[in-house]
Amino acid sequence: MAGKDVPVSPLAPTSYPDATAIDGVRFATAEAGIRYKNRRDVFMAVMAPGTEVAGVFTTSKCPGAPVEWCREALKGGTARALVVNSGNANAFTGLKGREAVKLTAAIAARAVGCKPGEVFISSTGVIGEPLDATKFEGVLETCAKAAKDGPWLDAARAIMTTDTYPKVAVRTVRLGGVDVNLVGIAKGAGMIAPDMATMLSYVFTDAPISAAALQFMLSQGVKGSFNAITVDSDTSTSDTLLVFATQAAAKRGAPRIESAGDRRLTAFKAAFASLLMELSHMVVRDGEGARKFVRVTVEGAVSNASAKRVALSIANSPLVKTAIAGEDANWGRVVMAVGKAGEPAERDKLDIYFGDIRVATSGARDPAYSEAATTAYMQGQDLAIRVAMGLGRGRATVFTCDLTKAYVEINGDYRS
Amino acid sequence: MAGKDVPVSPLAPTSYPDATAIDGVRFATAEAGIRYKNRRDVFMAVMAPGTEVAGVFTTSKCPGAPVEWCREALKGGTARALVVNSGNANAFTGLKGREAVKLTAAIAARAVGCKPGEVFISSTGVIGEPLDATKFEGVLETCAKAAKDGPWLDAARAIMTTDTYPKVAVRTVRLGGVDVNLVGIAKGAGMIAPDMATMLSYVFTDAPISAAALQFMLSQGVKGSFNAITVDSDTSTSDTLLVFATQAAAKRGAPRIESAGDRRLTAFKAAFASLLMELSHMVVRDGEGARKFVRVTVEGAVSNASAKRVALSIANSPLVKTAIAGEDANWGRVVMAVGKAGEPAERDKLDIYFGDIRVATSGARDPAYSEAATTAYMQGQDLAIRVAMGLGRGRATVFTCDLTKAYVEINGDYRS
Repeated sequence: MAGKDVPVSPLAPTSYPDATAIDGVRFATAEAGIRYKNRRDVFMAVMAPGTEVAGVFTTSKCPGAPVEWCREALKGGTARALVVNSGNANAFTGLKGREAVKLTAAIAARAVGCKPGEVFISSTGVIGEPLDATKFEGVLETCAKAAKDGPWLDAARAIMTTDTYPKVAVRTVRLGGVDVNLVGIAKGAGMIAPDMATMLSYVFTDAPISAAALQFMLSQGVKGSFNAITVDSDTSTSDTLLVFATQAAAKRGAPRIESAGDRRLTAFKAAFASLLMELSHMVVRDGEGARKFVRVTVEGAVSNASAKRVALSIANSPLVKTAIAGEDANWGRVVMAVGKAGEPAERDKLDIYFGDIRVATSGARDPAYSEAATTAYMQGQDLAIRVAMGLGRGRATVFTCDLTKAYVEINGDYRS
Repeated sequence: MAGKDVPVSPLAPTSYPDATAIDGVRFATAEAGIRYKNRRDVFMAVMAPGTEVAGVFTTSKCPGAPVEWCREALKGGTARALVVNSGNANAFTGLKGREAVKLTAAIAARAVGCKPGEVFISSTGVIGEPLDATKFEGVLETCAKAAKDGPWLDAARAIMTTDTYPKVAVRTVRLGGVDVNLVGIAKGAGMIAPDMATMLSYVFTDAPISAAALQFMLSQGVKGSFNAITVDSDTSTSDTLLVFATQAAAKRGAPRIESAGDRRLTAFKAAFASLLMELSHMVVRDGEGARKFVRVTVEGAVSNASAKRVALSIANSPLVKTAIAGEDANWGRVVMAVGKAGEPAERDKLDIYFGDIRVATSGARDPAYSEAATTAYMQGQDLAIRVAMGLGRGRATVFTCDLTKAYVEINGDYRS
């Protein structure tokens, strides 16, 4: 986290995409001094009139005040501003929290010249501390004036908390014969579990797509991406994923899309889904203390839902995750995690693979199993665990990282 | 674990109870060389004819072969021998695993002069490696001949794996005007979660109590003890808790008890329940890497079951557990864990206590909250977290420990 000497994750990307400008989106970052001094802790995006918006949020029963605000604002379907602060989550702050959100929206609306209900707000950081929204006075006005269309890396940096690297993904795709652009940014990096994570992510596109169609695509797209990742099984009170479509590409001849069923949307849908996948994997790869990225696939379960529960049981098992950190092909712990999931399982039908190596079959160690080959495989950074349950056709893949001493270190004194 | 230089848990007991002999139970330990050399890895108890038995086991859908054996043997209701080995769990070993158990039972039955179905077997250690039961040949015969009625500390030591201290608890209680004795031993220390844990525990008593009454008392007694503890949310394939009643106290005039509803059993029941509680807490206090013992109580939930799910969500949260390790009164993470449990919760009705200090009330920080006082409290070894949900009368308490770097270290290279 800020001020601590946590090294950049070894799983960080080696290069970043060019900062594509999104027609209709300008943004700026600033220092509001929410919690830390000398740190850009506010990100503000200003969107063109007519921008439509969709979103998905934490499943927590105790969501933060900004999440409640966004859920309400989404009903309007249009957005003109996004304000994100780090350092304070404004969660579990009671009436004061709701007042802080209201004040933030009012300040932003004044700065941009829009209705407060067109302002979307996220806060990330410590839970339970009152957020002093008066600190946004002046700051948001300055942001609105200074807002430019790049560079996106600055935006991604401004929303980081314990992240060790900024997360940006871009796509350009044809929509009705016209190129449209997407840029997504995200932050992790702990308290990451489906559905969502302390995970904030924002996707911006100039495509002229309706809020309803965006919402449908988003709800579909998160299933295999943001709702299939876990760092530590903990779910934040603040998880937010918003998609803004400025409609600006209509000026260049892109057709307006009302329905997610529109066949002209096929390429966009695929690009959008892959962008969500890329961002979500970036979050896992920056999981606190992560040294390995692990894809867990369960197939042959009685249903897809059952497969996902078993996959998450494996991906969340501290014993599986510490074994991976130790580069130990400890498939016995995988069996344990299958067994504890509570889903239909028959021990003597299980096959378990690390990468392409089948280590166990029909309820026992594979006779052809080579410890040396598996140990060599475990030394890689990108690992795959696959469990074939032999019961049905249910299948799911989830993504996680290993559990290292650094995770404990990072989280053992976060507030101090 | 054996051979590693893991220091004894700071939460270990400072003294051990005197080794009460249990009339009708003799035992011995031996080196069978299952996995480690020069280490007592077999514990064998020999019980008097007429000994009755009850048991509870892991809820894993992939239990080890010994668990399946014991479940079957329990139907007979009588026991003459118990064989426990460490080093190899004989779990996920397929047909070979079943054959290994059968051979172990045959060897023990021959040594003791009983039926194989009167032999109870547990194995703990690595999963998925074939167990060579021929190593028990001769060893069990020697054990049966050498068996004595103490010291119990040797028995507790022989079943340890990653445990840093042996776990023994004793009780003496009146039954129908006669003193009867109970001794319990247990091992942990990771993969501990309800219901059960890689948790093996055996209770021996000379009380003349029927298997049916024992089973009823056991099923009741584990609810608040062994089924209310968690170290890491992982559930072993081998969890076993057996209770043996030799009936020997009948010779001293203790009445035979057929039914758990018998009023003469009141004192025994209480002693038995508190013995289970003591043993289960010893297991948590030896949780891998544990430095703090934490009692998590949830009250005011919509039901007891809901309260327990919320309490376990808190007790299993890596972020709550690392905060405790860091002596950080991070009640925001407690809110997070309440929110992610999926149980009915109203943020603005929550009160949260660390010990007697109310840190949050009605969905926000307690105005009277003193960070200094709470920080001082967190430096203690025995901590209590209490959440009042304000919804109903549901209540549950679970027990856990903190998550430290030592946990990751211990589990990062268990097999190597």
